[in-house]
Amino acid sequence: MIEVECRIHIKNDGRNFLDSFKIKLLNEIQANGSLKQASKNLNISYQHAWKLIEEINRVAPKPVVNSQRGGLHGGGATITEYGLQIIDEYNIIENTINKITKQINVEINF
Amino acid sequence: MIEVECRIHIKNDGRNFLDSFKIKLLNEIQANGSLKQASKNLNISYQHAWKLIEEINRVAPKPVVNSQRGGLHGGGATITEYGLQIIDEYNIIENTINKITKQINVEINF
Repeated sequence: MIEVECRIHIKNDGRNFLDSFKIKLLNEIQANGSLKQASKNLNISYQHAWKLIEEINRVAPKPVVNSQRGGLHGGGATITEYGLQIIDEYNIIENTINKITKQINVEINF
Repeated sequence: MIEVECRIHIKNDGRNFLDSFKIKLLNEIQANGSLKQASKNLNISYQHAWKLIEEINRVAPKPVVNSQRGGLHGGGATITEYGLQIIDEYNIIENTINKITKQINVEINF
């Protein structure tokens, strides 16, 4: 079965800082308050999750995640007010794109 | 500047076989009739271009490129009738998605 997929990337000055996987990671952090638990739930290493968060915070216009590395539980992590706003905005964009993609998938003729 | 980008992927039974770079490669092959020239124009190795074409033909429902490997000029390559159809279809999809993305980029509030 032929299917069209659209992957959304959000850039700041040409550099990616958000995609669907990073949004999943932010949602897991929001739900668990812990980067360690978030990385477990997504089957990625804590190291990798930390790197993604570092990249998001470095490239985004304002910090998205407040985190403390290490400690007994791998440090706590919370999503900033700005982070919550961009998650909402991303979900709206994704809904719009998904509707169009669904329509395209009905009409395609490959 | 914050910007949303949508990357289109076309899948067959869940496996990608087309994206914007592969479409560029197909367009170069169509314009030059040669995989060697196409790979030069896109600054990729002949080996890499060959691998991409092999992947497209393997996963697509029907062959997209007719190619002969090797020879004095790196072998000739042409796009099949079906290949031309899917390039057209991809361009239509891309136009639709680009219009929506442009609109989203006017409205985003990150």
